[in-house]
Amino acid sequence: MQSIDIIFTNAFVLTMDENMNQFERGAVAVNGDSIVAVGAEEDIKKEFSAKEIFDCQGKVLMPGLINAHTHIPMTLLRGIADDLRLDVWLQGYMFPVEREFVSPEYVRLGTLIGCAELIRSGCTTFNDMYFYEDAIAEATAEVGLRAVCGESILKFPTPDSSSYEDAMAQAREFIAKWKGHPLIVPAIAPHAPYTTTPEILRETAELAIEFDVPLHTHLAETALEVENLRNEEGMPVIPYVRKHGLLEAKVIAAHCVHLDMGEIRTLQHAGTGVSHNPSSNLKLASGFAPIVKMLDAGVNVGIGTDGTASNNDLDMFEEIRIAALIAKAVNNDPTALPASQALLMATRLGANALHIGDITGSLTTGRRADLILIDINPVHNSPSFRRSPENVYSQLVYAAKSTDVTDVMVNGKWLMRERQLLTVKENELLIEAREVAKKIDAFLIEREESVLSKLIALGGSSEEESFEVQIKAKIDEPKSIIDGLMENDIDILYERHYRQHDAYFFFEDEKQGILRYREDDYIENAKSAPTKSRARLTLIGRKREGEFGDEKLLSRSRFLAPATNSLRFYREYFKPISEATIEKDRLRWRIKYKETDFYLNLDKVTIPSLGYFLEIKSRTWSRKDADNKAQLLEELLGLLGVVKDAVVTKDYIEIIENQ
Amino acid sequence: MQSIDIIFTNAFVLTMDENMNQFERGAVAVNGDSIVAVGAEEDIKKEFSAKEIFDCQGKVLMPGLINAHTHIPMTLLRGIADDLRLDVWLQGYMFPVEREFVSPEYVRLGTLIGCAELIRSGCTTFNDMYFYEDAIAEATAEVGLRAVCGESILKFPTPDSSSYEDAMAQAREFIAKWKGHPLIVPAIAPHAPYTTTPEILRETAELAIEFDVPLHTHLAETALEVENLRNEEGMPVIPYVRKHGLLEAKVIAAHCVHLDMGEIRTLQHAGTGVSHNPSSNLKLASGFAPIVKMLDAGVNVGIGTDGTASNNDLDMFEEIRIAALIAKAVNNDPTALPASQALLMATRLGANALHIGDITGSLTTGRRADLILIDINPVHNSPSFRRSPENVYSQLVYAAKSTDVTDVMVNGKWLMRERQLLTVKENELLIEAREVAKKIDAFLIEREESVLSKLIALGGSSEEESFEVQIKAKIDEPKSIIDGLMENDIDILYERHYRQHDAYFFFEDEKQGILRYREDDYIENAKSAPTKSRARLTLIGRKREGEFGDEKLLSRSRFLAPATNSLRFYREYFKPISEATIEKDRLRWRIKYKETDFYLNLDKVTIPSLGYFLEIKSRTWSRKDADNKAQLLEELLGLLGVVKDAVVTKDYIEIIENQ
Repeated sequence: MQSIDIIFTNAFVLTMDENMNQFERGAVAVNGDSIVAVGAEEDIKKEFSAKEIFDCQGKVLMPGLINAHTHIPMTLLRGIADDLRLDVWLQGYMFPVEREFVSPEYVRLGTLIGCAELIRSGCTTFNDMYFYEDAIAEATAEVGLRAVCGESILKFPTPDSSSYEDAMAQAREFIAKWKGHPLIVPAIAPHAPYTTTPEILRETAELAIEFDVPLHTHLAETALEVENLRNEEGMPVIPYVRKHGLLEAKVIAAHCVHLDMGEIRTLQHAGTGVSHNPSSNLKLASGFAPIVKMLDAGVNVGIGTDGTASNNDLDMFEEIRIAALIAKAVNNDPTALPASQALLMATRLGANALHIGDITGSLTTGRRADLILIDINPVHNSPSFRRSPENVYSQLVYAAKSTDVTDVMVNGKWLMRERQLLTVKENELLIEAREVAKKIDAFLIEREESVLSKLIALGGSSEEESFEVQIKAKIDEPKSIIDGLMENDIDILYERHYRQHDAYFFFEDEKQGILRYREDDYIENAKSAPTKSRARLTLIGRKREGEFGDEKLLSRSRFLAPATNSLRFYREYFKPISEATIEKDRLRWRIKYKETDFYLNLDKVTIPSLGYFLEIKSRTWSRKDADNKAQLLEELLGLLGVVKDAVVTKDYIEIIENQ
Repeated sequence: MQSIDIIFTNAFVLTMDENMNQFERGAVAVNGDSIVAVGAEEDIKKEFSAKEIFDCQGKVLMPGLINAHTHIPMTLLRGIADDLRLDVWLQGYMFPVEREFVSPEYVRLGTLIGCAELIRSGCTTFNDMYFYEDAIAEATAEVGLRAVCGESILKFPTPDSSSYEDAMAQAREFIAKWKGHPLIVPAIAPHAPYTTTPEILRETAELAIEFDVPLHTHLAETALEVENLRNEEGMPVIPYVRKHGLLEAKVIAAHCVHLDMGEIRTLQHAGTGVSHNPSSNLKLASGFAPIVKMLDAGVNVGIGTDGTASNNDLDMFEEIRIAALIAKAVNNDPTALPASQALLMATRLGANALHIGDITGSLTTGRRADLILIDINPVHNSPSFRRSPENVYSQLVYAAKSTDVTDVMVNGKWLMRERQLLTVKENELLIEAREVAKKIDAFLIEREESVLSKLIALGGSSEEESFEVQIKAKIDEPKSIIDGLMENDIDILYERHYRQHDAYFFFEDEKQGILRYREDDYIENAKSAPTKSRARLTLIGRKREGEFGDEKLLSRSRFLAPATNSLRFYREYFKPISEATIEKDRLRWRIKYKETDFYLNLDKVTIPSLGYFLEIKSRTWSRKDADNKAQLLEELLGLLGVVKDAVVTKDYIEIIENQ
């Protein structure tokens, strides 16, 4: 009789093995870090003697769950900003906060909190992608969880590396350091096709192949990603990454929401693992991943929570349940993705997707002892039926809660006993996290105090100060102005034609100013489509600072920023209380009159329909210069045939507001 | 200073009132069964003195959740049969088990277990529809939960009434008995348009109006329901029930998955409340309800779990989360149904949908003290951000679990303190439920032991025993047979023409026999479409019982049942290991030859393509009669020009199997 460390008895053993063997009165024999036997209790007891007999009290004993995709330190950003569109969420909140706060200490704290949550909810392995992955691996190994840790690689500077070359060097060092660790599988994580380059895809795949480690990435998460790649590269996501050698590595692809059948077959052929992240895909409205088609095609599809900022927790029981439910509605078939298959995705298939199916994912002789005990008899899961082997999977998937997990062992070591965490000091961490959250709250509150600080937080803005003389007049028809320009002693330096679309955002506190989003469409030929567009944001002080007491003389201080996002983005980010739109056709000349430079704008305001206006302006630097130029402005107006009482002193936006 | 019973202090109070007021350091004053004030702690403390000051330790204090649609005793059928199509699930499992087990004692036990689960998960009010609703109301009132209890009315006999008239009389008595109870709001529940008649809709609405009580029903749950009503009544669901007066009552409509904008406006106009049941709609693949459109139109939409047999629990936290997540993906908009609105559906809007918004659903002066405490600081919900009033709703909807509820009060009375149930003896109930589950398991196991018992469980089957003489021959072409029939001294009593579609189900254990599903399409005119169809099931013993040692003489014992469901239903219900299809065109004559009755079948077997066969058969009762008829069979064959070696002794299915 073989002597071993521990025998789990009196358990409802779900092996999740190839035959989905289950033993209602079962036992599992564990020695050191591994499972040595699984079977009926009476058989195991005959074969082994053990230092410890662990009575499972009739609970379910099954392989620990595999969280196939997450960004674990994001526990520290849980619930910080929800119900937002992806770009607003990422660029308005995640990126600014990460730029400000992410450090090795920060990711360590976030990882420890995440590990505590994962253990409590029965997860024994997770697949991560973040920054300072070395600190994440360190914390995870200390806690004793199993993880695939992927160092992120992007084409931009990131919180942990200022350049792509640095990031690659760091990743190589990271992988070399952790390769062979009993708990940590190091990996490289080129973030996504749209945040990398073909070179990055190829070189990260080469590094993964060189070290024989997994490569973790995001693929085909949104319809926009697919659309952009089709437009720019003439192919969808999977052919694109395959072309650049990515699929030659042991890839774990998160999301895979927008794939066609050909792409699914490519993934199967390449042995690519997929992580399905239903809560995240729903919450960010990314879509419904074709899970049933992937499974039918033989792709290893696991289930992941994604980061807690888009979920907002690491609860695999919720994910499994939602995966099983959604598949039915999407396929219009209540028999789709039955409970046993959903649970398989969260165990054996998930381990296979992570390319560590030989280590974990099922209770099988030789696999590591990564196992959990679940009480399936609380009131919310009673009574139990045992007519069919499916009944118990149904209990676990449709009615069990993560809080029903009572005990967790990883690699033969206890991490939780009777709901008590053994390797993480939860309360201390929560106090630390509270402090971090307060700082982040303060950072965002300060930023959100003013429109200006929110504008600055987006990056790229600059202040512009100018003094101008300006005159504006309502005119009846443009021809006389153009004729006047040609006929008189005016040098035309250049002429431009464009259409301007302006959206003005107004805020409750008028002192915040008005934010203008302007798109300029350049028109080379009046009959053809615009050839070039440019968009920018301008934060305009509410009151004109006519400090010289003269309507013709203005001093302005404005903040300008290139508008790299859509009008919709800025609307959702700045949350104006009201909005106005002005569209105009603008002919703009730079002219020289009496040795002095002027800009002349001949506007046809089409929305709202206000008719034609003429603006003439020039920069100035002194009172004397201003007086001189004001004189020339009036002369110019006269030359162009504009009568004095046509002069208006209001901006277009003021004209609209007073209508 | 007013003296009252209890002040809740040190609470993060979410009122869910019209202004969504929240008080981070808030208090709620309760006297008797009602809320007397809600506000900032310092204000409430100044205004009231109380017998008890209850320190909420910073937890969230909010209105109890409203489960807007359930069948509470179905806790006893939780997880009994999942991942099945609606008809297989209902007719194959739910109905047979309910016919066998449902009694007042059964619903009482199921209700008590359901109440325990509801209290644990923070639900203070539920809206029910089942049988023996009086026993349900009794048990609920004992436990102290608030409920709208709807006595079911169907056009069929139900477990609690043998006829519609009985059911109505019972409902009237039930409503009269409970009307005015402090916790129970009696209601009437015509089950659904497809299980009732126009008269039932009208009369139940009249009863509800007479007593001024709610009317609870299922509307537009599946696309099939809409399609059938369109075909049969020329209109979709809402116009149909409106036409029959239903919407004049205070209706609570469960599901409303398949509605158009016109129907949504009708519901809004009628003040109909809706219960959205996302888990159930997903699990049964009913579809995605247009929740955002309904809310935008001003319909009061609550959230329900539906019964635990289609969920499989009563966890409102899961429902709220799924409702919020799904709405985003379905509307392709991550800003759809934000957390605060989802939580509102589960509180104030839900109470409004149940037509009891003046009693419960928000923490407002004058409403009953139905409230819960939730710990929002466990590790899975840490850290917390407080930048925006939305943060706390986000915590509750996207990360909180039902197990975070610590305390529950209904109508000013404690039902749970520090996770200890005070009015339900949970453990005793679970022991009782285990016994019931064992009996149900035994009932189903026995039934599922044989194909025959599964057939009988569906109802309507009967045994048919017969002795027949029969002869069958392969023939080359039909014309000679038909000519032969006309030319000889054979009386043709009648002729039929039909197409037969047979599906044969085979089972692992051959002794189970073969189950045949046959559809007969009657053809009146060979050129037109079939005029009538009939489908039946026949369970055929595997071996022909040729006990007289003569291939022409057969004794058969077969079970026959009308096939009221689809072939697909029977396939999923009986789960054959393999299946064969035979299709044939059959000309059938009843003839008289030498004073003796015979049936003559001239078959063209088209699938598989086997060609023409002639069968002649007659019932018999004695060896002598059989010998005589066998002689006549051979004569007939000769008259029709069939040669002896064309005779085959096998059934079509045997011919196919041997191919």
